[in-house]
Amino acid sequence: MPKQCAWPLRSLSARQLDDVGALSMTKLFDQELQVVSVGLPAFAESVRANGAPVVAVDWQPPAGGNAKAGMTLAKLVNDPKIDAANGKAFELFTSSRPVLEGVEIAGDVLPGMAPRMILHAGPPIGWDDMCGPMKGAIVGAILFEGWAESRKDALALAASGEIPYGPCQHCNAVGPMAGVISPSMPVWVVRNDAQGNRAYSNLNEGLGKVLRFGAHDPETIDRLRWMADTLAPTLNTALAHIGGLEIKPLMAQALHMGDELHNRNAAASGLLLKRLLPGFLCEKVVCEDATAVSEFIAGNDHFFLNLSMAACKSMLDAAHGVADSSLVTAMARNGVEFGIRTSGTSGRWFKAPAPMVDGLLFPGYDVSDCALDLGDSAIAETAGLGGFAMAAAPAIVQFVGGSPAEAVANTRAMAAITHGPNTAFTLPTLGFAGTPSGIDARKVVDCRLEPIINTGIAHRKAGVGQVGAGITRAPLACFVQAVSALANIRAS
Amino acid sequence: MPKQCAWPLRSLSARQLDDVGALSMTKLFDQELQVVSVGLPAFAESVRANGAPVVAVDWQPPAGGNAKAGMTLAKLVNDPKIDAANGKAFELFTSSRPVLEGVEIAGDVLPGMAPRMILHAGPPIGWDDMCGPMKGAIVGAILFEGWAESRKDALALAASGEIPYGPCQHCNAVGPMAGVISPSMPVWVVRNDAQGNRAYSNLNEGLGKVLRFGAHDPETIDRLRWMADTLAPTLNTALAHIGGLEIKPLMAQALHMGDELHNRNAAASGLLLKRLLPGFLCEKVVCEDATAVSEFIAGNDHFFLNLSMAACKSMLDAAHGVADSSLVTAMARNGVEFGIRTSGTSGRWFKAPAPMVDGLLFPGYDVSDCALDLGDSAIAETAGLGGFAMAAAPAIVQFVGGSPAEAVANTRAMAAITHGPNTAFTLPTLGFAGTPSGIDARKVVDCRLEPIINTGIAHRKAGVGQVGAGITRAPLACFVQAVSALANIRAS
Repeated sequence: MPKQCAWPLRSLSARQLDDVGALSMTKLFDQELQVVSVGLPAFAESVRANGAPVVAVDWQPPAGGNAKAGMTLAKLVNDPKIDAANGKAFELFTSSRPVLEGVEIAGDVLPGMAPRMILHAGPPIGWDDMCGPMKGAIVGAILFEGWAESRKDALALAASGEIPYGPCQHCNAVGPMAGVISPSMPVWVVRNDAQGNRAYSNLNEGLGKVLRFGAHDPETIDRLRWMADTLAPTLNTALAHIGGLEIKPLMAQALHMGDELHNRNAAASGLLLKRLLPGFLCEKVVCEDATAVSEFIAGNDHFFLNLSMAACKSMLDAAHGVADSSLVTAMARNGVEFGIRTSGTSGRWFKAPAPMVDGLLFPGYDVSDCALDLGDSAIAETAGLGGFAMAAAPAIVQFVGGSPAEAVANTRAMAAITHGPNTAFTLPTLGFAGTPSGIDARKVVDCRLEPIINTGIAHRKAGVGQVGAGITRAPLACFVQAVSALANIRAS
Repeated sequence: MPKQCAWPLRSLSARQLDDVGALSMTKLFDQELQVVSVGLPAFAESVRANGAPVVAVDWQPPAGGNAKAGMTLAKLVNDPKIDAANGKAFELFTSSRPVLEGVEIAGDVLPGMAPRMILHAGPPIGWDDMCGPMKGAIVGAILFEGWAESRKDALALAASGEIPYGPCQHCNAVGPMAGVISPSMPVWVVRNDAQGNRAYSNLNEGLGKVLRFGAHDPETIDRLRWMADTLAPTLNTALAHIGGLEIKPLMAQALHMGDELHNRNAAASGLLLKRLLPGFLCEKVVCEDATAVSEFIAGNDHFFLNLSMAACKSMLDAAHGVADSSLVTAMARNGVEFGIRTSGTSGRWFKAPAPMVDGLLFPGYDVSDCALDLGDSAIAETAGLGGFAMAAAPAIVQFVGGSPAEAVANTRAMAAITHGPNTAFTLPTLGFAGTPSGIDARKVVDCRLEPIINTGIAHRKAGVGQVGAGITRAPLACFVQAVSALANIRAS
């Protein structure tokens, strides 16, 4: 039996409730017994043991049975101001039109990025508290910037207090895994044509020993240099040639081609390459650069991931800042803490310990090797993609575990905690229904149903790389705090 | 209730049949009644009307109740020699390893292609009997070859008896729709690395006014010239650069990306372009040719279709010619007749009138505009793809009609008439089961279940183009003839 939340019970009309009351006990026992047991499974079991058919509904009282918190939640759940605010935020989200403008240098374009600043994934965190892969990536960024010559010197500088750290999300940016962006790194620039805001992401390096998993060996740094010196300007020339690229139709197409746009971007990466191709072949690009860049993109089925993330960020930032809205506009992990933001609670992060990821590990690794949940990539789920769109990508279960039927069930389940379907992103398997989108923090708490996230798993030590992929959940505690904060705002 | 064939009943063991016999009538009526009604629906209805639960199995006597034909079929169905032959043919099919070698000129490489010969889709047909699109395409081929200067002269030559016509399939080739191949046209060359045979197909022109729908205006002829002069040599250079291309893994990947490789080749076309790209960018290709060719391929999501067909042909030709085998090795339509061949009946065609296609028509067209079922492209279904692999491609229902659930049901249904799953081509939605492959003519007749085919619909007049796409069935009569021919061979 799927988990049910209190939500649908409210849809009983007064008339229907009267009908229930009017049913006399005599009448009741004259009929064949059809039992629906709500809550504790033991009640259903005893009915079943006596031979009667019973439907067991997995229900728990809202707010875990805490009467005061439950009353607060009930007020919020029935608050028409919040409903209206969510409608507005959802409209801003769904009407967004992300366009890929170009590739620029982070320090030149990221709003709020101070000189020598290094950005990271997730909510704010200091050097001492960072996880292994994030520390490794920061060492790599310092070497890439040329602020230190050796790993030892870079480590000393990183810990010295001279480097300002801050979340990517505070600069309208997102980065997968460690999410480290330093001033000289190239970033995708996505303009939301409908609302005018911009969002940014670093470029995907591929798999294996890469900065986002904490690697900082010479091969990793050389690749970053090539990305800045060759990949970025070639992409930029191509984008100028084709006049920018609307991202949403491409994402919609990829959802019809087996991607969920978080851990599976095979179709989208191919479609992006196809769209950029005329730009690579134009006379402004040196042939050997065009060859190297095409082969780099063609060889990395995750290349689109960072662009998908920037597009999601641009759509969700547009929905951020609507007073009274309980819609979630960011979910992000720094490898220690999981943080969320909601539209109506300005810049506050609501945090809980980052969870473990339940997944499939590559051969030779076990759970003791795994870092905790890490990266800004849950921006995909925040936008109704990734785990929320698994029904689009049955083949992904080979990567993240589970069965195709469970993938479909995951998408269906997320409808209970979201504002509505995003008709721009449809799911063929579900009769072309839109992806469940606009996570409502109230519904998460009311249903006690945590948002599902598909994600990669990093080795807990810097630089080893990806050790697997799997499924995790955004911690309920984040949403309880968010709802409580919104209640305080509404009460004040 | 899905259609059931007699087949599974044969799997009851002697012990199980004894158990049925040992059940006394007294015992039977002591139990709660559970009825399975086999055959006429009226029996099930009367049981249901009396309040008992009933499972109605849609069953018809094999061979339509004709006792003599039924006995012949029963003998074939239980013939261990045929089972063994089918096992051998299936193994030849599944172990095939099609490799794209290059692009050559038809007249130079097609075995059995006489000078000035023009090949067409489907079983043999003379000029007078041909449908509109096929006649139009032949006029176009004559203009392309330069054998006539005007449409009028071309028509006269076409009808003069001076042009030898023959099916593509007689030259180990296949062509979609009219399937017209003339000596100067370029063809894909696919080598089956496991068995050593080769198969061929023309190159896809895109949509709109194209030769395969009977167009022969100057734009169509100019495109064919460009394809011969620029596209073909550029593809050939690229293929030489990358050292050929294994096609089966690419097809398998596309099935995980929403293609069924007949009417949906969007992923496969993109994957092909990605694989060819390093070859286009090599110094042997002029930049403007690389640009034009890349844009041509990127702009045509059906570009892979013809290559998929040649790969299927190479795998099925390898399975052809196994004595006593009842597996189908070709299904093809010339727009007038539908023909099939089976492995154990050498070069014979078993034919029936080509059916109408039930589908979605483009705006402005109605059924009176539609040509009958046309083209060699049903080689895809013969190889367990297309309609047989619809479960891979839920989004295709927007093109051919029906619902995603029906698409899955179509794939499931085809298991009843095929030899087994092809584990090289898996379907994520069905728990990664292999595509149902190796149509057994005996099973088609036994189950009276016609193979399903996804297909495009041509306008019945030459040159108008595609008017829609839909689903059709291979006529039962073809399979009845094939089974009868095999019975005669076995009896002689």
